[in-house]
Amino acid sequence: MHLDRIRHPGLRAKITSAEQAALLVQDGMTVGMSGFTRAGDCKSVPAALAARAERDPLSITLITGASLGHDTDKMLAQANALARRMPFQVDTTLRRKINQGEIAFIDQHLSETVEQLRAGHIGPIDVAIIEAAAITESGAIVPTMSVGNSASFAQQADKIIIELNLGVPAAIEGLHDIYVPTDRPARQPIGLVSADQRIGQPFIEVDPARIAAIVVTHEPDSPSNALPPDEETNAIAGHINAFLRREVDAGRLTNSLLPLQAGIGTIANAVLHGFESSSFEKLRMYSEVLQDSAIELLDQGKLAFASASSITVSKPVYEKILANMEHYRERIVLRPQEISNAPEIVRRLGLIAINTALEFDIYGNVNSTHVGGTHMMNGIGGSGDFARNAHLAIFVSKSMAKNGDISSVVPMVSHVDHTEHDVDVLVTECGLADLRGLAPRERARAIIRNCVHPSYRDALQDYFDRACERGGQTPHLLEEAFSWHQRFNETDSMRPSAPVERKVA
Amino acid sequence: MHLDRIRHPGLRAKITSAEQAALLVQDGMTVGMSGFTRAGDCKSVPAALAARAERDPLSITLITGASLGHDTDKMLAQANALARRMPFQVDTTLRRKINQGEIAFIDQHLSETVEQLRAGHIGPIDVAIIEAAAITESGAIVPTMSVGNSASFAQQADKIIIELNLGVPAAIEGLHDIYVPTDRPARQPIGLVSADQRIGQPFIEVDPARIAAIVVTHEPDSPSNALPPDEETNAIAGHINAFLRREVDAGRLTNSLLPLQAGIGTIANAVLHGFESSSFEKLRMYSEVLQDSAIELLDQGKLAFASASSITVSKPVYEKILANMEHYRERIVLRPQEISNAPEIVRRLGLIAINTALEFDIYGNVNSTHVGGTHMMNGIGGSGDFARNAHLAIFVSKSMAKNGDISSVVPMVSHVDHTEHDVDVLVTECGLADLRGLAPRERARAIIRNCVHPSYRDALQDYFDRACERGGQTPHLLEEAFSWHQRFNETDSMRPSAPVERKVA
Repeated sequence: MHLDRIRHPGLRAKITSAEQAALLVQDGMTVGMSGFTRAGDCKSVPAALAARAERDPLSITLITGASLGHDTDKMLAQANALARRMPFQVDTTLRRKINQGEIAFIDQHLSETVEQLRAGHIGPIDVAIIEAAAITESGAIVPTMSVGNSASFAQQADKIIIELNLGVPAAIEGLHDIYVPTDRPARQPIGLVSADQRIGQPFIEVDPARIAAIVVTHEPDSPSNALPPDEETNAIAGHINAFLRREVDAGRLTNSLLPLQAGIGTIANAVLHGFESSSFEKLRMYSEVLQDSAIELLDQGKLAFASASSITVSKPVYEKILANMEHYRERIVLRPQEISNAPEIVRRLGLIAINTALEFDIYGNVNSTHVGGTHMMNGIGGSGDFARNAHLAIFVSKSMAKNGDISSVVPMVSHVDHTEHDVDVLVTECGLADLRGLAPRERARAIIRNCVHPSYRDALQDYFDRACERGGQTPHLLEEAFSWHQRFNETDSMRPSAPVERKVA
Repeated sequence: MHLDRIRHPGLRAKITSAEQAALLVQDGMTVGMSGFTRAGDCKSVPAALAARAERDPLSITLITGASLGHDTDKMLAQANALARRMPFQVDTTLRRKINQGEIAFIDQHLSETVEQLRAGHIGPIDVAIIEAAAITESGAIVPTMSVGNSASFAQQADKIIIELNLGVPAAIEGLHDIYVPTDRPARQPIGLVSADQRIGQPFIEVDPARIAAIVVTHEPDSPSNALPPDEETNAIAGHINAFLRREVDAGRLTNSLLPLQAGIGTIANAVLHGFESSSFEKLRMYSEVLQDSAIELLDQGKLAFASASSITVSKPVYEKILANMEHYRERIVLRPQEISNAPEIVRRLGLIAINTALEFDIYGNVNSTHVGGTHMMNGIGGSGDFARNAHLAIFVSKSMAKNGDISSVVPMVSHVDHTEHDVDVLVTECGLADLRGLAPRERARAIIRNCVHPSYRDALQDYFDRACERGGQTPHLLEEAFSWHQRFNETDSMRPSAPVERKVA
């Protein structure tokens, strides 16, 4: 049966075992692997590579679209097979080794990785390992549930290993739109002017002579691990809906809004769920990942079209999509991540970009990546691609973490991923701060009034008041700026030991 | 004579005095004024406005392209006429009032101001005050030595005041290329694919009925105040030249490089001067401002073409350009700053972007704006537009300031304008750190080895070593991260009081 999936007859002889294919990867090589937020990753060759590395020392640079499923990062990290890793990850074992300084992690804007490869700033790619649903008559690759960086990996690699996943229906062909910008200095505009437009091919064109091995698999993608909405995420969604409603009422947006982008994870997923009960209609998404909420909005008819680079969903939603691929293929397009996240397109379309902050400060600077300013969580992902260029850059966070021992709103973020220039709106379950057109001191007042949890509000106001006494465009007390983080390190809580004495206003 | 410059006959009756024209600006209004880095600003109406404000209370929001000459910001600030100011400034009086919290300063990416106006996030513009060299038959405005945000100001304003500057030759007509992106959601790609291409009109088309007053002036632009190159800026230029030479030798760039962008100011001007003695040929610029060095490179034939939004030069160079406008009009184009700085174009063309840092840290985060983390210097300007999207984002700084009492390389920047994601290369007179493809700890080693002044190197290495003992992707000692800044505040010097005791490695 799987021979139907390899329509280029000369390539059928390339079918081999994962172990044999993995031998193409040698110590010191740079490997480009498919996979974006657990979707469309390779299932068998990485495991074979890790098993081999347990026996024979192997150290590679691994570049992907974004995070992988199937414990691939864990297995490779445990086997000491990773010298360098980019541009994103979410695995606890890999994260521990990154933070111990054992694995070099290069945290990148997700639109930029293949640009850097093309420019020769990183790479070159020795071996690309790409999951496919089919290989066409000409040897072109039909991707599966993500595109990520696969197109450029395959086009740039010396050798290509295909994982042909028979568990993905052949009807997925046509879901993808593969467009790769041409080299400079003769590069042309990316011609995309609406979320539902197709500007490329439904497959990745490669020289079939570079396809060195084909491994047959059947395994599904690892399911999404997003948690269901809760009271706080519902409150965040409510604040955003009310804000967008006011924008429509003010004539700054139509009732179809502008294309939506939502980051990966529980809060962003919950925020999108909130649109189900909104009065907006004929919404479109231009995002990097589609989660359960996007599929449900499509099914409900609230969402008219969704463009992304991957589909990362729970098991039942995954099975529904695979069983109804012809239906979804008309309503979803998957693109290379340098197109889904392209600054050029994000600004042209004017996205409403909703991303998650780890913490933010009184001036609206956002930390998306570093716990306590030092330890990597996952990576910046696409949040910078979207926030910098969006029509509206919205960041969301619960106001507190760790049962209230951490305030997500702090005097100064311990690490900056997004500067105040790039942050329009901040939202917690407590409320929404609209920062557009405000100077830093005005931003601080709006954030303290609307976003910080009441149990931290007085302390934050006190910091801001005392900082203002010293003056400046962005008043701070440098000797106290990280005192909340230090207190957490010392006492496991940011809470002040004694109540702040408030001056009479 | 000046009637030749007003080719629309109906508009000649609009000629009036600066004082009369200034009366169109009422208390509480938002005013959009031409002017970008001292070039093409208005010379007489702002002064009349300030004089009036000294008598009658007046408080406006002033939006410009970038900084103004002629002490306009000083006069308006002294007269308490500014409630709000955006997106950039360089005046000491205005700066003092901003840092005292008396004037709200909104520091913006220079490509984004008119995008925010179009979206209704700021504004609307009540009155636009625009310097012009001529008004065409149809009432269109021919700008002078900058375009800045003038096109969008004029198109969006209720009323337009023209300052017709007879000191600028009529031959300037044809220097400009005015293209304004259409509104969303139907916006099309910006069709520009090379620095010398013209995609718009040589004038700003407006409804002549909105031209409410015309004031005739003769005054030249305020001259550039960039200092001449010195030993340290020459060393910085030398490091950059050698680096780019290695890129050519490695086949990553041709001998014409990619289009150059250089920020405003002494160091960037000096770095460009350094190209005069380089072996590169047929260079092009795609920048926001052209300084003396750019004109000299053009005259020398080293530079084949220069695109920008303004020309900010010394008095002799200014006079040379005006006297030879037909010559320069073939070699220079001035564009709206949302085009000169457009992320879409910056990435498509693949610029080599050279901008100045106030300070940077061991991981390559850059502070461009805030002295001591709190006090505004000028503003982020276009540095973010360029650095984020460039082929190469290079930041330059002298390694020390204030006779060595400030190290420009610090453990942690006290304010972040550009995160490590957006910084490829850092250069001081001591050397160049090539950070491409490096993880944070690797970046730190390269920066400490190459960029920090030897008199601060041991202390910085000591900080980094002790931070690494605590671990993390980006090791820091939060309680010490700003200790250098605090020491400067307390002792007027960042220098440690006693030599750092180095551990035996």
